[in-house]
Amino acid sequence: MTNGLLVFQSDFGKGDGAVSAMHGVANSVQLGIPMFEITHQIPQYNIREASYRLLQTVSYWPSGTVFVSIVDPGVGSDRRGVVAKTIDNHYIITPDNGTLTHLKQFIEITDVRVIDESKNRLPNSGESHTFHGRDIFAYTGARLAVGKTTFEDIGPLVDPATIVELPLKTSTIVDEVITGIIEIIDSPFGNLWTNISRVQFRELAKNFGDSFEVSITRDGRTIYNSILKYGRSFADSHIGEPLVYINSLDNIGIAINQGSFADAYRVRTGTSWEVVIRKAPLN
Amino acid sequence: MTNGLLVFQSDFGKGDGAVSAMHGVANSVQLGIPMFEITHQIPQYNIREASYRLLQTVSYWPSGTVFVSIVDPGVGSDRRGVVAKTIDNHYIITPDNGTLTHLKQFIEITDVRVIDESKNRLPNSGESHTFHGRDIFAYTGARLAVGKTTFEDIGPLVDPATIVELPLKTSTIVDEVITGIIEIIDSPFGNLWTNISRVQFRELAKNFGDSFEVSITRDGRTIYNSILKYGRSFADSHIGEPLVYINSLDNIGIAINQGSFADAYRVRTGTSWEVVIRKAPLN
Amino acid sequence: MTNGLLVFQSDFGKGDGAVSAMHGVANSVQLGIPMFEITHQIPQYNIREASYRLLQTVSYWPSGTVFVSIVDPGVGSDRRGVVAKTIDNHYIITPDNGTLTHLKQFIEITDVRVIDESKNRLPNSGESHTFHGRDIFAYTGARLAVGKTTFEDIGPLVDPATIVELPLKTSTIVDEVITGIIEIIDSPFGNLWTNISRVQFRELAKNFGDSFEVSITRDGRTIYNSILKYGRSFADSHIGEPLVYINSLDNIGIAINQGSFADAYRVRTGTSWEVVIRKAPLN
Repeated sequence: MTNGLLVFQSDFGKGDGAVSAMHGVANSVQLGIPMFEITHQIPQYNIREASYRLLQTVSYWPSGTVFVSIVDPGVGSDRRGVVAKTIDNHYIITPDNGTLTHLKQFIEITDVRVIDESKNRLPNSGESHTFHGRDIFAYTGARLAVGKTTFEDIGPLVDPATIVELPLKTSTIVDEVITGIIEIIDSPFGNLWTNISRVQFRELAKNFGDSFEVSITRDGRTIYNSILKYGRSFADSHIGEPLVYINSLDNIGIAINQGSFADAYRVRTGTSWEVVIRKAPLN
Repeated sequence: MTNGLLVFQSDFGKGDGAVSAMHGVANSVQLGIPMFEITHQIPQYNIREASYRLLQTVSYWPSGTVFVSIVDPGVGSDRRGVVAKTIDNHYIITPDNGTLTHLKQFIEITDVRVIDESKNRLPNSGESHTFHGRDIFAYTGARLAVGKTTFEDIGPLVDPATIVELPLKTSTIVDEVITGIIEIIDSPFGNLWTNISRVQFRELAKNFGDSFEVSITRDGRTIYNSILKYGRSFADSHIGEPLVYINSLDNIGIAINQGSFADAYRVRTGTSWEVVIRKAPLN
Repeated sequence: MTNGLLVFQSDFGKGDGAVSAMHGVANSVQLGIPMFEITHQIPQYNIREASYRLLQTVSYWPSGTVFVSIVDPGVGSDRRGVVAKTIDNHYIITPDNGTLTHLKQFIEITDVRVIDESKNRLPNSGESHTFHGRDIFAYTGARLAVGKTTFEDIGPLVDPATIVELPLKTSTIVDEVITGIIEIIDSPFGNLWTNISRVQFRELAKNFGDSFEVSITRDGRTIYNSILKYGRSFADSHIGEPLVYINSLDNIGIAINQGSFADAYRVRTGTSWEVVIRKAPLN
């Protein structure tokens, strides 16, 4: 069952009228429908970031919330439009292009339906084939959110195993050395968020204040190598001091207190950006 | 009749408190009033873009929606504040400075009233004469939207012919050569949106996949000249390939699939930026 | 008594999922809770600007509105989380780090309670100590706004005199010379907003159109010195002409009509940026 809320995400920005056209369509389905957003500032065509932002936010929304995520470089091709249902009863409407990768991996998607566009398209939406966000996804999302259609009526079930997935890397721990990647930058602060979980890190780290050797490499080239303290929060460091900490998603973050680690060392994200953490040598 | 919704547009940005002050005023008129936005990122003082964004979005909102658009370099002068009613029963509250140009030309404005500021001004709004957005337009828009005032009570009727209009150019087709202008950039993607309609283009273009010669000139100087395919959507092109397509407003767009045409060739907008499209010569 | 509205401010930007996670938490407290924002674009860690933006906006919101302001470089330290109640019955939830400075000075804070985190924390919010905005402030703000907790239940009363305050400067008038500072830039327009009130300025300025000598210095070095007219609004000047005017907070502003004064002369803000205004010498 849906709960009436509709949450958008896209790479449209909010500088033109695209988001507003979608909001208008949703209000045409139901006046005053409560709408929210994850962000409309996903970098253009960056499906991986869209996937990560869903993981970052979906679980904080009530059960039954409908999400519409539109990073859609393949609009107009034969890529599928789908509605996915998670094990926690969140619904995500999106082009099936990798956007569901992190939710599938880390939350669990139980059911997927392919949107039947013959009955889920804004009436009189014309001959444009470049804005399914407005004509199909926002329209269908609003109708699903407020109960004017049901999950079952949106289209045929398909096997969740058929969802398009981006390659992911998981972190490993071998001989007390943890290896992970930089998943994303915590903008606008510039903290690095890794794929190393708190649980894994705690196998190494027993106490706040302990020191660790942190290496960051890009395609094998060392970008950063230093000894960092494990802080409970930024405030355990001096201003300008780097630290390792547990971020708000229960993963390991690397930061400079009141500075931007990403800018300082020009760190970016993805599977080519590796992080290695080990106990600092005693001296 | 209005429907209770209030939609804002401005060139204020959202970095300071100006939009929030307007939202507070509207909530003072009615707690929890449903408010939305077209964009607050209109380039400062760019009335033409404000006018275009209204055209892009208004028709997707339900009948009875009230819009407040504030790009107002003449605030405090004797420029009029007006409420315009379209043939589709949308209401637009705005300084009468050209903001209504596209709606008047392409939709039809049936009635215009000048705001009587003696009875439509936030009580105790002080001696400032620089923020009518908050003190007059948001306040009046909220009251109109929720029915605390009526269109008739806002002020005297004036002839829609007296509305301030910016110069527009219409596209033409002569001997199978279409000439138009670049109306706007589809930010943040960088696609060019022209003023050439699908209907007009179809006189030339019979089938997706056909090729066309596209010239873009600025004040007569050629900026771009090449043969482009007519694609159903971006996905009909290779990544990085340019194409001609029908955009989400049923006009002709020019794009690079997953690139920015505007950045690639430094194309801007306005009546000095001409586009000429003709059938590609057979070879 | 609160009125059900919840208004956010932060330095998070809207490019990632942080704001959305807070919105999700608030919707978990009550589905469809009416939420608004001052801005999420406070420059990172800029507590002074957060404090000013509250002053700029709070009084335009209805009595009983709950504000949550999170510029929180000291998250995880022993800085207090507080709820302040103003004399106008607005509630502000914030880290006690200077964010309440302007409201305390210019509006009046009547009651302050320290948030008892043992009973005001999102259930199961894990072991992260870096996102109190989501886990404590948004959660508590939503519960206070909708009446699931009361001001009295949030935690123990403390003396408002104990609130952390940033140093402020007040403007002075001596021998018909007014001395003040540049408080803030009216972004995105680039107008300077001073701490000189209309009332004070009127001791000098009797009529629109009068001329004044305006000097701007930084740490004693002259940045700008010229004769400016006192305009009722921008429209009293030619385009490109500078002027002195009364801004929307009833203080003196300095602007270039349709230009950016801040950019033109590289003016920034704070107590080191002094403004001196005196009557222009007759010639």
